[in-house]
Amino acid sequence: MKKNITVLGAGLVGSLLSVMLGRRGHKVQLIEKRPDLRKVKWEDGRTINLAMSERGWRALDRIGMMEEVKQIAIPMYGRMMHSEQGKLTFQPYGKEGQSIFSVSRSLLNEKLMNIAEQEGNVSLLFEQKCMQVELDKPAIHLTHVQTGESRVIESDILIGSDGAFSAIRSAMQRTNRFNYQQYFIEHGYKELTIPAAANGDWAIDKHALHIWPRGNFMLIALPNPDGSFTCTLFFPYEGEPSFQSIQTKADVIAFFEKTFPDILPLMPDIADEYMQNPTSSLVTIRCYPWTYQNKVALIGDAAHAIVPFYGQGMNAGFEDCVVMEELMDKYGDDWQTLFETYQKNRFPHAQAIADLALQNFVEMRDLVADPKFLLRKKIEAHIHQKHPDLWTPLYTMIAFSHIPYADALAAGKKQEQVMQRIMNIPDIESTWQELDYKKLLQE
Amino acid sequence: MKKNITVLGAGLVGSLLSVMLGRRGHKVQLIEKRPDLRKVKWEDGRTINLAMSERGWRALDRIGMMEEVKQIAIPMYGRMMHSEQGKLTFQPYGKEGQSIFSVSRSLLNEKLMNIAEQEGNVSLLFEQKCMQVELDKPAIHLTHVQTGESRVIESDILIGSDGAFSAIRSAMQRTNRFNYQQYFIEHGYKELTIPAAANGDWAIDKHALHIWPRGNFMLIALPNPDGSFTCTLFFPYEGEPSFQSIQTKADVIAFFEKTFPDILPLMPDIADEYMQNPTSSLVTIRCYPWTYQNKVALIGDAAHAIVPFYGQGMNAGFEDCVVMEELMDKYGDDWQTLFETYQKNRFPHAQAIADLALQNFVEMRDLVADPKFLLRKKIEAHIHQKHPDLWTPLYTMIAFSHIPYADALAAGKKQEQVMQRIMNIPDIESTWQELDYKKLLQE
Repeated sequence: MKKNITVLGAGLVGSLLSVMLGRRGHKVQLIEKRPDLRKVKWEDGRTINLAMSERGWRALDRIGMMEEVKQIAIPMYGRMMHSEQGKLTFQPYGKEGQSIFSVSRSLLNEKLMNIAEQEGNVSLLFEQKCMQVELDKPAIHLTHVQTGESRVIESDILIGSDGAFSAIRSAMQRTNRFNYQQYFIEHGYKELTIPAAANGDWAIDKHALHIWPRGNFMLIALPNPDGSFTCTLFFPYEGEPSFQSIQTKADVIAFFEKTFPDILPLMPDIADEYMQNPTSSLVTIRCYPWTYQNKVALIGDAAHAIVPFYGQGMNAGFEDCVVMEELMDKYGDDWQTLFETYQKNRFPHAQAIADLALQNFVEMRDLVADPKFLLRKKIEAHIHQKHPDLWTPLYTMIAFSHIPYADALAAGKKQEQVMQRIMNIPDIESTWQELDYKKLLQE
Repeated sequence: MKKNITVLGAGLVGSLLSVMLGRRGHKVQLIEKRPDLRKVKWEDGRTINLAMSERGWRALDRIGMMEEVKQIAIPMYGRMMHSEQGKLTFQPYGKEGQSIFSVSRSLLNEKLMNIAEQEGNVSLLFEQKCMQVELDKPAIHLTHVQTGESRVIESDILIGSDGAFSAIRSAMQRTNRFNYQQYFIEHGYKELTIPAAANGDWAIDKHALHIWPRGNFMLIALPNPDGSFTCTLFFPYEGEPSFQSIQTKADVIAFFEKTFPDILPLMPDIADEYMQNPTSSLVTIRCYPWTYQNKVALIGDAAHAIVPFYGQGMNAGFEDCVVMEELMDKYGDDWQTLFETYQKNRFPHAQAIADLALQNFVEMRDLVADPKFLLRKKIEAHIHQKHPDLWTPLYTMIAFSHIPYADALAAGKKQEQVMQRIMNIPDIESTWQELDYKKLLQE
């Protein structure tokens, strides 16, 4: 039976899910607080570009958009680490030819909105702020952010794809026995730009995710199609150095000269940008349940906002959509069972990727500058190549497979123990290529 | 300098803190949503009686109320376990003469309100629902629950002692980077009664906390001054058996006959009570920060609601008040430093008692029925008696000392390791009284 479905939040996940729902013949109202992105740029402090990997591609493939998006995506084959002396070290993400992709958030979102609108079954409504949620109907009370005009939208099913500070989730939080956690790390982030070179070309290698690991903090850079890079400084709010300790333009220049000397000459507007651009916080949201009867469901960041350090935020949200669609095939009109199965199946994997994302911050900002750690990664890649049936590195499982996140996390913990033993082998630096890993693993 | 201070929530902690603040010359408005407890009984699903231990007594001693409250308190010297066959096993809480105390929540609260009112500096206002909080002023917007009349109360300092679902904390949650968690366990609880015997006497031993440990769930009973006991059934919401599976009066009787046969004859109204009394949920709340500038602070359950299984909810809240008062002595008029120190010092101990309370549920409902566990407790008591300088059991640290909770938890973890080794000694059952524990501990 076809349903009237309201999807609140026309970000990436809400737009994708609306396409899927519309194609199944449901009548979808896709509602967004911000103006139409295709006419007015969103200035909401969300990241400019993001890392698309296998889970994201699979979702786009399901709606036939993979090839189109690949056109605007820039492959990044590994991490390029920049030392304080400007020395470069490259660490591949996977096997030869495997890469994650830098994609513009707004371009991707526009494409998804266009496809949704072309469906015929999806209508978009912008600049509508959700003021109140009635879970039992379900209904949402909206107010137009410009005119103040208000309306109530009732439907059969209500989907909350309204992000980390979800209004739908807020309403669910007021029901009894709703588990909820919001956890902010001690770091915030600020976006900065490396503009294209004078000839329009990228100023540094465009096929890598660049990292300036500095122990307790880091700078990263992802390429944009226009030749620029978007840099993100992940930095403590307090302490020395921190957003609090770097206050003036002179502070900024002195800090970059000392800490990121190789990149400073490529960032002519750094001081102005640093002063003008907002500092944003980084939150992990965990909650349960994700659904309310057969009426309401949370998806994407609304159910499980994570920190960006595994590049899996959008990928995880897109995988939610794939899981939801598979369950629609399985349970048809039984939305109660569909929703219950969705939340039960998906929750442990959301927990796992939230944990992995928090852990990976330490790896990115600190460990990747450690030769021993890089050797370990090299050995893991070596084992994977020689014995692909026995060993898949954790990063590969997350970025280049569909192995459920919690299963990957569990396998990764076992690998951690094995690798600790291997790294303790005397002279491992010189002998690692000759070891009998099959025997070691069987022990 | 004397301040105008608003304390929102006239429960145990808010009333106690108001007494302390009033005695220091501050002008205190103590505001409560419910009617005046001294005229109308509160029916809010809070427990009828609670366990007072050393930390609670110290707080009452500071305001000179210890002796008066001891008059209405019933000492409980240990746990009395009831097996399914009706066999009784007694396990003392501490050394000879040490006990925790069963105290009526409402009687204690009334006494604290009376003292607060007698101070002269504290005025009480009832039936005021907090509709809005302005942290920056600080101010609260109140509406009278009967008349609908509204008012705004502005003050120098605002204290949120308004419990697990605090309105003040809700406002703080909307500020940036506020960490927050609410976690409901899978069990709820329901209160039931063992009335006084025909001669007015207690039907079972009044000087014990009675437990019917049944693996995944349990029944407990605490004595009341009128000869009755208040029983609490801690029971899963779902599964077999659970609140969901026990639905009719016949179910209740059959379940109690099978599971608690020794107590059923003493509970003539069990079926009616079970049907009428509410099922309440059990939540742990963790959050940080607890204060906002030099203006607002959370205290008691508003800052750290915990499950009741260590009997420390009120004791922890009272200890908050003691810590706050000690900091007033230290920092005088510097409320900014006072609040910052309060939250930094106190937060880890709130985390520790929250963890301990969750762990102790397993001990109470399951382990206390295990002979090996009881032997372990006996050995610990024996070591404590022989070498009080080397060993204080965890329960003793929590209930009979002022050792900060986190320190007790850390010491308890070390003891856990030692005891695992001791319990693995062959024939420990027969040899434990002869072992050289001093030597064992030094190893």
